[in-house]
Amino acid sequence: MTTLDQTSVVPPGFVDLLERPLFGHLGTTRPDGSPQVNVMWFGWDGELLRFTHIPQRQKYRNLQADPRISLSVVDPDTGYRYLEVRGVLERVDDDPDGQFYMELSARYGHPMTAPPDDAADRIVLVVRPTKAVTH
Amino acid sequence: MTTLDQTSVVPPGFVDLLERPLFGHLGTTRPDGSPQVNVMWFGWDGELLRFTHIPQRQKYRNLQADPRISLSVVDPDTGYRYLEVRGVLERVDDDPDGQFYMELSARYGHPMTAPPDDAADRIVLVVRPTKAVTH
Repeated sequence: MTTLDQTSVVPPGFVDLLERPLFGHLGTTRPDGSPQVNVMWFGWDGELLRFTHIPQRQKYRNLQADPRISLSVVDPDTGYRYLEVRGVLERVDDDPDGQFYMELSARYGHPMTAPPDDAADRIVLVVRPTKAVTH
Repeated sequence: MTTLDQTSVVPPGFVDLLERPLFGHLGTTRPDGSPQVNVMWFGWDGELLRFTHIPQRQKYRNLQADPRISLSVVDPDTGYRYLEVRGVLERVDDDPDGQFYMELSARYGHPMTAPPDDAADRIVLVVRPTKAVTH
């Protein structure tokens, strides 16, 4: 476990919002400069955020043009604890067997016994947080 | 009620996500082009989205520079029905008595008996949806 990693920009009192399988609302900037926000599963290892994705999506094109993201997560138990993590796409990993997709599915309560149909296209967006805003 | 307004870009099957008092994740673009996402209460009259705000916030400065927004709402009952509404800030209304803030508070289950302390600064961001993406 690296959740106590002292280099993380995420305040310890809000790390649970990344550790729990909550929905993240991922903001990217479209090539025309307008904002796009999508609901996403995510993984968190105490240092980096990971998203499963396929490169045919608009979000991927957005990130190729501008690697900066914002992720918003709210505590569904109260609704009034929330976290915005800003960060930068550090790299894109291949996930040709869909293993990371399957990991996330299990994390979010939908374990799969076989890889997804689009496993060959699956990639992992690896994001490094640069700043956190909490409330 | 104008929820059946035929001019709305929001598909009828997803309008409930705006009619219910759900949290919205509001994406704006910062002056440096990076995305910002904030959890927000919102109101919906079948045609326009409304947010209570104060002009001292970064979001307001973002919208002065670029009036385009994206609002992401997920159905908490399933987690797998969601709606992204893109739109444009059409105007900013004054709310000097904090009445709209109080309306939203009541809608979200926190009725108030007195205006908020910052009532004098309160404004209403009035957004016209231009496109909806559903899943």
